Amino acid sequence: MLPEAVMQQASEEMLDWRGTGMSVMEMSHRGPEYTEIATQAEADLRDLLGISDDYAVLFLQGGASSQFSMIPLNFLQEKTAADYVNTGAWSSKAIKEAQRFCQVNVVADAKASKFTCIPPLHEWQVNQDAAYLHYTPNETIHGVEFHDIPQVSSATLVADMSSTLLSRPIDVNRFGLIYAGAQKNIGPAGLCIVIVRRDLIGKTLPGTPTMFDYQIHDKNDSMYNTPATYSWYLAGLVFQWLKQQGGLQAMAEINSRKAAKLYAAIDGSDFYANPVEKSSRSWMNIPFTLVNSELDKTFLQMSAAAGLLTLKGHRDLGGMRASIYNAMPEAGVDRLIDFMMEFERRFG
Amino acid sequence: MLPEAVMQQASEEMLDWRGTGMSVMEMSHRGPEYTEIATQAEADLRDLLGISDDYAVLFLQGGASSQFSMIPLNFLQEKTAADYVNTGAWSSKAIKEAQRFCQVNVVADAKASKFTCIPPLHEWQVNQDAAYLHYTPNETIHGVEFHDIPQVSSATLVADMSSTLLSRPIDVNRFGLIYAGAQKNIGPAGLCIVIVRRDLIGKTLPGTPTMFDYQIHDKNDSMYNTPATYSWYLAGLVFQWLKQQGGLQAMAEINSRKAAKLYAAIDGSDFYANPVEKSSRSWMNIPFTLVNSELDKTFLQMSAAAGLLTLKGHRDLGGMRASIYNAMPEAGVDRLIDFMMEFERRFG
Repeated sequence: MLPEAVMQQASEEMLDWRGTGMSVMEMSHRGPEYTEIATQAEADLRDLLGISDDYAVLFLQGGASSQFSMIPLNFLQEKTAADYVNTGAWSSKAIKEAQRFCQVNVVADAKASKFTCIPPLHEWQVNQDAAYLHYTPNETIHGVEFHDIPQVSSATLVADMSSTLLSRPIDVNRFGLIYAGAQKNIGPAGLCIVIVRRDLIGKTLPGTPTMFDYQIHDKNDSMYNTPATYSWYLAGLVFQWLKQQGGLQAMAEINSRKAAKLYAAIDGSDFYANPVEKSSRSWMNIPFTLVNSELDKTFLQMSAAAGLLTLKGHRDLGGMRASIYNAMPEAGVDRLIDFMMEFERRFG
Repeated sequence: MLPEAVMQQASEEMLDWRGTGMSVMEMSHRGPEYTEIATQAEADLRDLLGISDDYAVLFLQGGASSQFSMIPLNFLQEKTAADYVNTGAWSSKAIKEAQRFCQVNVVADAKASKFTCIPPLHEWQVNQDAAYLHYTPNETIHGVEFHDIPQVSSATLVADMSSTLLSRPIDVNRFGLIYAGAQKNIGPAGLCIVIVRRDLIGKTLPGTPTMFDYQIHDKNDSMYNTPATYSWYLAGLVFQWLKQQGGLQAMAEINSRKAAKLYAAIDGSDFYANPVEKSSRSWMNIPFTLVNSELDKTFLQMSAAAGLLTLKGHRDLGGMRASIYNAMPEAGVDRLIDFMMEFERRFG
């Protein structure tokens, strides 16, 4: 989902970008028009997140799944082990891929709780010889979110922020690397944003494909090869829209209010349930179940008929899931809650 | 450049794809609407090129530049060497990247001719122990094109068709793998199409990132991770447009006619020149120079003012270059020729 205002603007500019007679899709990525678009998008993202020049901001392809390999290939350097925190489906995937390249220490694992909580920091078995510590601040499928950056002294922090980046302000300086597949909270599929501290890059493992070398992309302003130009442009429109909304502090207030409303509706009812420990509940992805799961299908049919789309839970978990990213207006959450209450009155 | 009819359709469908109330950009890649779009695009491409089920058709990210690594990582298997033909800037890049993974035999090299010809087949030093033979049927920058598939008995043929795929019919069965960055002759940037014989995949080198394993993408119908959904959709619109034009035989006739006209205009004048040997001239990319290069700047300014955009030659070569892909109508080539003749009358 993209903000309606962004879709409208993209639609208006589609055949003719600002009187050039060209679509953004048809521009050369090295031409002056596209360079302006790309540069502005990076500047706006740096502005929104307060990113200093110590960090490269990269607009890459290949999704978070490519990052699962790129991180060990770039960050292991002389070391042979890395620390990973397992809080759900996405951390599990990152761990599995990293195991192809190094010894992975799972320093904390929420699997026993069926990924309904974040293991407390004092229980983490952090290793001094780890090249970095990887965690997933928001688990899209399980609806678990870190609301603070873990204070680990030892290692470079690496975070998969695919479904939370830009939902609130963050202190980028606490991280060695942040990455985010754009298709959750930023914009279109086919773009992955990487924010990486420049002093950490440039020493890849032997046999690393050139396209998996962060420094190559940094030195070429993400144009070592043709980037995903249209997705980059759309992400830029989203960044401008976020600035118009008042920036990330304003978004954090809206997002926390949206989530609080929906959790209150779930918790205030015996008809709906959310299994996640309260302090670890996601602002972005809210899985919930009907106490009587035989009603699931009816709920999904009726909600779709009411224009509330894609509420089906992930196939691994079943039930329902509301993804209420930045682009979801507060009124959309209100409509969902109204529908849920009405459904409960009828079937509860 | 995309066909005007495709841009128009994409623009009309942008905010609401066929009454669903959703933009294609906002669809889940696993939902029924997007599955229909993706499946249809693959079926249409198979139809256009006559691709059998012995071949996987993959819609990947990362451009041709990622293929430069993926090919050796997937195709070397037990072997340690590969054959490459060097006919210009793009083959040179493929060679440089392959050298990270294996011994590269440059079996034929047109560098001494400044890449103005294709070395004759009988001079190629093909090796029996090579895992595959890689060549670049069309060199975008140098304007050199193979008009026949080289008849080499020994090795699996691998071809970078980034700037020629869909310009004419090809016999896919002659190849082990064909790849094409979509942004030249297919559609939008951010998509790379790979056509690969299924019996050749599944044995990657140790340490290959999962995202660089063709078989993973084949088994998951190019949805191991979120693909570049909008670019895939646009490519699908282009495939449908090509079928409406009469398919690739019809495109070949138009393309050969467009190119013949422009070369005739260049050759018929003492004012313009194209350095490429006649039998190796590209249908798609036609570099040309003004005999008096002091007029280059004036030519580019006046052509841009006349609405003939992006005629500037590649920075490595200078001069001018006309890229006349499928999406360039014959009338566009006529306009360019008219402009060139008028410019010659005025400044010649």
